[in-house]
Amino acid sequence: MTKGNINVSVENIFPLIKKFLYSDHEIFLRELISNATDATLKLKHLTSIGEAKVEYGNPKIEVKIDKENRKLHIIDQGLGMTAEEVEKYINQVAFSGAEEFLEKYKDSAKDSGIIGHFGLGFYSAFMVAEQVEIITKSFKDEPAVHWVCDGSPEFTLEETTAKTDRGTEIILHIAEDSLEFLEEGKIRELLTKYNKFMPVPIKFGTKTETLPLPEDAAEDAVAETVEVDNIINNPTPAWTKSPSELKDEDYKAFYHELYPMQFEEPLFNIHLNVDYPFNLTGILYFPKLANNLNIEKDKIQLYQNQVFVTDEVKGIVPDFLMLLRGVIDSPDIPLNVSRSYLQADGAVKKISSYITKKVADKMVSLINENREDYDKKWNDIKIVIEYGMISEDKFFEKSDKFALYPTTDGKYFLWNELEEKIKPNQTDKDGNLVILYATNADEQHSYIQSAEDKGYKVLLLDSPIVPHLIQKLETSKEKISFARVDADHINNLIKKDEPAISKLNETEKESLKKNVEESINDKKFTVQLEDLDSNDAPFTITQPEFMRRMKDMQATGGGGMFGMGGFPEMYNLVVNSNSEFATKILANENAEEKSSQIKHALDLAKLSQNLLKGKELTDFIQRSYKQLEK
Amino acid sequence: MTKGNINVSVENIFPLIKKFLYSDHEIFLRELISNATDATLKLKHLTSIGEAKVEYGNPKIEVKIDKENRKLHIIDQGLGMTAEEVEKYINQVAFSGAEEFLEKYKDSAKDSGIIGHFGLGFYSAFMVAEQVEIITKSFKDEPAVHWVCDGSPEFTLEETTAKTDRGTEIILHIAEDSLEFLEEGKIRELLTKYNKFMPVPIKFGTKTETLPLPEDAAEDAVAETVEVDNIINNPTPAWTKSPSELKDEDYKAFYHELYPMQFEEPLFNIHLNVDYPFNLTGILYFPKLANNLNIEKDKIQLYQNQVFVTDEVKGIVPDFLMLLRGVIDSPDIPLNVSRSYLQADGAVKKISSYITKKVADKMVSLINENREDYDKKWNDIKIVIEYGMISEDKFFEKSDKFALYPTTDGKYFLWNELEEKIKPNQTDKDGNLVILYATNADEQHSYIQSAEDKGYKVLLLDSPIVPHLIQKLETSKEKISFARVDADHINNLIKKDEPAISKLNETEKESLKKNVEESINDKKFTVQLEDLDSNDAPFTITQPEFMRRMKDMQATGGGGMFGMGGFPEMYNLVVNSNSEFATKILANENAEEKSSQIKHALDLAKLSQNLLKGKELTDFIQRSYKQLEK
Repeated sequence: MTKGNINVSVENIFPLIKKFLYSDHEIFLRELISNATDATLKLKHLTSIGEAKVEYGNPKIEVKIDKENRKLHIIDQGLGMTAEEVEKYINQVAFSGAEEFLEKYKDSAKDSGIIGHFGLGFYSAFMVAEQVEIITKSFKDEPAVHWVCDGSPEFTLEETTAKTDRGTEIILHIAEDSLEFLEEGKIRELLTKYNKFMPVPIKFGTKTETLPLPEDAAEDAVAETVEVDNIINNPTPAWTKSPSELKDEDYKAFYHELYPMQFEEPLFNIHLNVDYPFNLTGILYFPKLANNLNIEKDKIQLYQNQVFVTDEVKGIVPDFLMLLRGVIDSPDIPLNVSRSYLQADGAVKKISSYITKKVADKMVSLINENREDYDKKWNDIKIVIEYGMISEDKFFEKSDKFALYPTTDGKYFLWNELEEKIKPNQTDKDGNLVILYATNADEQHSYIQSAEDKGYKVLLLDSPIVPHLIQKLETSKEKISFARVDADHINNLIKKDEPAISKLNETEKESLKKNVEESINDKKFTVQLEDLDSNDAPFTITQPEFMRRMKDMQATGGGGMFGMGGFPEMYNLVVNSNSEFATKILANENAEEKSSQIKHALDLAKLSQNLLKGKELTDFIQRSYKQLEK
Repeated sequence: MTKGNINVSVENIFPLIKKFLYSDHEIFLRELISNATDATLKLKHLTSIGEAKVEYGNPKIEVKIDKENRKLHIIDQGLGMTAEEVEKYINQVAFSGAEEFLEKYKDSAKDSGIIGHFGLGFYSAFMVAEQVEIITKSFKDEPAVHWVCDGSPEFTLEETTAKTDRGTEIILHIAEDSLEFLEEGKIRELLTKYNKFMPVPIKFGTKTETLPLPEDAAEDAVAETVEVDNIINNPTPAWTKSPSELKDEDYKAFYHELYPMQFEEPLFNIHLNVDYPFNLTGILYFPKLANNLNIEKDKIQLYQNQVFVTDEVKGIVPDFLMLLRGVIDSPDIPLNVSRSYLQADGAVKKISSYITKKVADKMVSLINENREDYDKKWNDIKIVIEYGMISEDKFFEKSDKFALYPTTDGKYFLWNELEEKIKPNQTDKDGNLVILYATNADEQHSYIQSAEDKGYKVLLLDSPIVPHLIQKLETSKEKISFARVDADHINNLIKKDEPAISKLNETEKESLKKNVEESINDKKFTVQLEDLDSNDAPFTITQPEFMRRMKDMQATGGGGMFGMGGFPEMYNLVVNSNSEFATKILANENAEEKSSQIKHALDLAKLSQNLLKGKELTDFIQRSYKQLEK
């Protein structure tokens, strides 16, 4: 039996890194700047605990393009490396410097924000460079060293006197196929994308600043200008601060810093801040959702210790919050894993439910602080809240405290307020509370008016997910049911124990029904005679709640039991047997005129229900114009 | 100066593989089966060129679960490995066996479909196994060997007599956190997802088959049943065959094999087959798009040498073809790269334009083969074609040969047919061909009718992207313009040199205009008197083409110059000064009645344009019911 060690040959590791490790070549810059940041923060930590006896100062990281010589420089003022450390951290691929460092200074390093895994990230440089140089001088009193490698496993390492100040300079000799990384615009774009909020200042070129004129300057004095470092990042973005340090303006300013192309103000923000049982900071914003064209582009951004990772947060943030904007920063979210893995991950689950809870808490505090303002914002936030109520049980359980139910007369009720308001008038003879609603104030206007004439309140629920929301509410609350205002004649929607008085006798009714059925001659309509108030419309078209709701659910992707074919269009035609029109029809002896009057009345009822269309509508209009000309 | 070799320590490579290489742990099975397939096809190749003096036979791959002992077996009957080869291919991580093999047998191996990179893929086993065994016997006359490794760099390797038949058996000792991979359902799911069309038969368990009764069997004979291998894949899927071997039924059968939950038939298919300058085979299907609920789920699948890779083909297939279904198989598509990289990749660009060209060619041959059938299918395919016309110039250039323009009377015209048909009647006095269109036959019915009454053809263009399509057509064709039927009164849409005859003199007209303006008192409407046919409607509401089109573009995300705020609602109210109604209004001395008649006429015009809504509509209906009761 042989025993042995598996041998990994390095000729094959480089293509591996190139091909598999990073899907995007541009990542190299993020990795190198992460390393530079890492080296700087490590030095800060060592000086703070007295292990490094040097002045920390105000170190920055510089990125410099040397287009003529096809070089890109990344220069930091961090720890630097001795020859021994280069040997250890650079020449041993996949040896994680950061891990060892963390191990050694475990407790004290916890909060110093050390990122990256030196070594592995460094080699991403070979995705774009044909040769890489490192010139580095340690904070320890040792000579600087110069390392050169062309991407083969061979390297050279020698002492150098060329560098006298502390820190590391990485020089990339950009390869032929990667010359785009010598363009100022490209590098600026990458720095802005990945490093906008890194914790160490990053210098990229210089800019001109005009000095203020001294107070006693002559009138024709010309202001002096100076060249200053152009710092590309904000090392202390709002989410790294404590909520107590931030004013409303600060949150808004940070919103625009995040989304420079976004000109609208956010409605409000939620500051996330937790360090046990997982680490998470961040700020979420509720944007105005209506008419917002950038909804797709300006997404929630995920950072890890201030390094941008992705704006694909599906699986990390609960689905219903995907329409929000802002930042989440957490080192505890596993990357490069599939969505199904993410969803099963314990830490991610906890993060997701923490965020959900924070959003619910924020809603409660917003509504309690300023009810009027909350009411005004409701239409912009309702989609998020309603979607949350349907999809997250924990969120639904709390929603009675912040979910609003607007009525067609422009009022906004919490559930218990609504119940209190409508209980006396809208409880039917069996003790069920009937909640009337409309989905479109315009299209259902005549039905809403009939309901309001009876003193009923009508909810205006116009989100596309309302059928699901209603189902959720009906199954979780006792003795209530929802009915859309056009589901039946209003008298039948909330049945009271009131005897109906009829103007017509049974024979007359039968004759009326027969007249109507014969004239309209359309199987879509079931004629239903009702003894209504004589002022109520002679004809009303209704569509039973159950059938319509199934249809709506199918339309929003909620399945439905009738399969792909969809439901037949079926309506009831409620004929008011107490109306003047009914009396007039019965009395009319001219069969043709009677029939055309019934048809015209049916057209009017169809108009109410948005059913008169195409040729029928054109004919109706032509007939009506003729009538006017008489 | 030191020279040295970069050293990769293997303790750190395993976590690397686990963490970075595969985002999905389940990939291990695909990798191991790819290796097994690879070993089998290599043997086939070697026997075919006489390098291996053994019988190839009918080898298969077997996957076996041993739940009790927590083991998963993958057994092939391929090449097998000698001790030396295990040392070389397994113990040297990232040493690509397949690459070396290809190098050696370059020309003869070209078409034998060798896949995978042995070595690297193999180690994915450690994502789910705490220990992996290999028992393998080479086709060469050497003893079988047994390799064991627990995921550390240490392994053992010894000769064994336990295996006497050719091939390799991999035994995974499934780790505690991966026990799901001992579930039959899970393995079946993975095999179906990744290996459904692999080129070597894969056995997973057995099934019972009933033998046919012999012809002379007694009446009470019971059919015998036998256990047979349960083969989970189809090693020769349709796309690997030549189009000449396949009938229409075969294409349909394969469609249902790909999408077992899809019950509708595809409209037609496009067989892709090219081997220079890149390799690509595949079959694309046009599904019925209308009312199709699985559109999101059943996507185009990408394979490489019959191994499923992904169904995220954005960037590979042109955007406008993303609604199609089917399979693309190409080894030339780079994987694990970003979308922007994909789009810049030369091979991918060529593949994308090849597919576009094939689709265009197919359309031409379909319309030429059976015009009637093509016309019928148009409404199901138009979104794809129209989107392609807008987004791909090459596709647009060819589209005159296959893009149809349906009219409201149910006919379908090619561009040149349309031009020929309407040129005599729809050329205006300046020589421009005016193409009338409607976007909704129902809502614009009265306007369509007016146009048809003049003998004009009206196109029915109801896709959401129509504003963009129209713009594209107007800018690429000479002396044509599009106008929606309700953009102006039909007489003004196609201006002819016909003198208008007026019933009213200028004073009367002025008085009529004043009457109308005062009565309607609404800044939305600009009153415009026209001398029309006395039978034309007294009032017509129109909306200028340019303004409406800008609005539509904005709605479909095409930008627009008025920014976020949207356009104001502005209409023209065309008053027919020759109508009976106009005469009647002028003659009416009762100011109140006159005003209410004008308002009623305006309501009717609003109905035509779908503008009478909410309270206005309810009032109109109530008024009309009252009128009926008189």
